Amino acid sequence: MEPFLYSHQNRDRIIWMSQNTNTLSTTPAIQEALNEAVRRREYALYPYKNGLFGLPEALKEDVGAPHYDVLMANGGIEALYVITRALLRRGDEVVASDPSFLPIHHQVSLCNAKTIEMPIYSDPWKMTPERVNEAITKKTKMILLIDPINPLGTAYTGDEVRAISEIAQDNDLYLLDDITYRDFSDDHHVTSDYYPEKSILVYSFSKNCGMAGLRIGAALAEPELMKSFVKYNVNPLSVNILAQRAALAALQTKDQWISGIVHICRRNQATIKEAVERIPGVFLPVYPSYTNMFIIDIGNTGADPEKVQEKLLLEHGIFLRAGNYVSKRFGDRFVRTSFSLPEEECQKFARAFPQVMAELSG
Amino acid sequence: MEPFLYSHQNRDRIIWMSQNTNTLSTTPAIQEALNEAVRRREYALYPYKNGLFGLPEALKEDVGAPHYDVLMANGGIEALYVITRALLRRGDEVVASDPSFLPIHHQVSLCNAKTIEMPIYSDPWKMTPERVNEAITKKTKMILLIDPINPLGTAYTGDEVRAISEIAQDNDLYLLDDITYRDFSDDHHVTSDYYPEKSILVYSFSKNCGMAGLRIGAALAEPELMKSFVKYNVNPLSVNILAQRAALAALQTKDQWISGIVHICRRNQATIKEAVERIPGVFLPVYPSYTNMFIIDIGNTGADPEKVQEKLLLEHGIFLRAGNYVSKRFGDRFVRTSFSLPEEECQKFARAFPQVMAELSG
Repeated sequence: MEPFLYSHQNRDRIIWMSQNTNTLSTTPAIQEALNEAVRRREYALYPYKNGLFGLPEALKEDVGAPHYDVLMANGGIEALYVITRALLRRGDEVVASDPSFLPIHHQVSLCNAKTIEMPIYSDPWKMTPERVNEAITKKTKMILLIDPINPLGTAYTGDEVRAISEIAQDNDLYLLDDITYRDFSDDHHVTSDYYPEKSILVYSFSKNCGMAGLRIGAALAEPELMKSFVKYNVNPLSVNILAQRAALAALQTKDQWISGIVHICRRNQATIKEAVERIPGVFLPVYPSYTNMFIIDIGNTGADPEKVQEKLLLEHGIFLRAGNYVSKRFGDRFVRTSFSLPEEECQKFARAFPQVMAELSG
Repeated sequence: MEPFLYSHQNRDRIIWMSQNTNTLSTTPAIQEALNEAVRRREYALYPYKNGLFGLPEALKEDVGAPHYDVLMANGGIEALYVITRALLRRGDEVVASDPSFLPIHHQVSLCNAKTIEMPIYSDPWKMTPERVNEAITKKTKMILLIDPINPLGTAYTGDEVRAISEIAQDNDLYLLDDITYRDFSDDHHVTSDYYPEKSILVYSFSKNCGMAGLRIGAALAEPELMKSFVKYNVNPLSVNILAQRAALAALQTKDQWISGIVHICRRNQATIKEAVERIPGVFLPVYPSYTNMFIIDIGNTGADPEKVQEKLLLEHGIFLRAGNYVSKRFGDRFVRTSFSLPEEECQKFARAFPQVMAELSG
């Protein structure tokens, strides 16, 4: 049973907690923008190569990097692909974490470069400036900061972001700042505030704006740095125009609805916490999470995360991910679940999960 | 004056003949599919990674490669990017043509490989099997066949496709077969019929289906070969779901409307031909064109193609491309214009072009 195939075959009756998607209602402005662009058949033409008028500007304002240039991409993952290919060479090292968003590590390996994966599966459940500093060698070319962290939900404080930025600067390193989940945090800090020269912000509209299926994201960097990687751009013919229309509508209205989304995420977290605390041996390493997901540690129960994933999916129609998707070393100790979904769906999970764990615990 | 910026700023009153887009009415099925997917908010979830159910199958049937695997991509250009990155290494050579679709040549250069650009700006206005054979060296790794040819409009015969396929096979080369414009041809042949092992078909929905702004295309190859380049996939999280819905609707209905599109293109070509023949020193190297574009040679008039482009754009609101976009060597001798657009717009071009040429000829 391939879980994605099964889930897509049963798409409408699955509770999706597996890919950090956001199925909550954001704003009707997104659908209106899409409908209007379809009605006008805007898609017959190529979009403007530098992005839909107003979109790069709105994005710079949103992240607070007014002096950066913007490269629109078909998803944050495409932006990451271009950056890694452009900036990394054979033998280079990238300081990263484990757990992490591993597709980035795969991209690094495609460059014949290497991720140095700092274990962060213990308190404080994130990299520390001290350990980042220790991990740097003569081969280090880049630090990968995912903030807040997929999958743990940990956020870096302003002081930590500043310290890591200074380490990058002192060592003349690129600082890749994946800010996909920033809107779920109360107090997020971009590295561009501290180290503008070689920080690169990678933005995604997938989770905050509930449009993972539109595949739109961006990279932001200083104009000089941007020039050095634009020639590796995958899509000089630009990004899907409907996605760009939706993204602009989302940014223009985001301050009206994002706090409502985050509020539901916090309530859903609390619902899951209450359920988890009643299960012997199970715990939440990070709570509250400053993303729309967290991990549930089941390492003391003897249950196999893959079996938990399968049983929840087949018997309850709930799709979460076994830990091996986001950690090579610790993946057998946890499952990852997102909670940016309707509260009744989260409650269904809170009822089903203890039952599945009781059945699978050794 | 940056022509793309100007044209997008005046988007609705520009006659777009510059990027081979297709602004003709194809089918309401495309808009219906888009509207329905927006209504259902399908875009909140990631699409299935192997493509929307039914789309890869429909595509294989459309191109006649039932045993191939399909990699969906955000545009044919993304498919080409993945293929070149995966298959080319430093020092490799790719046999290609000049004129050509130069963004592919740029992609080759990103691999530190080299395009050997065979001049084809003379009769028969395409590569011949004999010349392809002569261009092969020990370093050759790939042949790039664009069929029909952007920008010339020339098509390869079945015998020529077979012969070039055999040359690729005899020399154990990859054969990259860019079939973007095949639907505008009367008698197109895919290399996969002759050399399935190492032919790679690159498909685009931009021109035939009038959806350049949706950025969707694909690569098709034998399962074994596909495996060798899938790890370089830019978008493991798949392609915009709205684009996939539109693409499936287009393929399911294409035989009802594509001949109507091609018919208008042929009539528009004839309209342009009639206008061109009245201008001293100007001629059409290839007529009829088997794509939705051709080139107009103005090399004997003394007019600068860039000036022709600018004057048509600023004074007549007609956007075509100077030759340097598609040829380093011959770009100062021609302009490229597409004609998959409403007949009244083409007629406007046919009136304006002789006037502009009279003003600019030396």
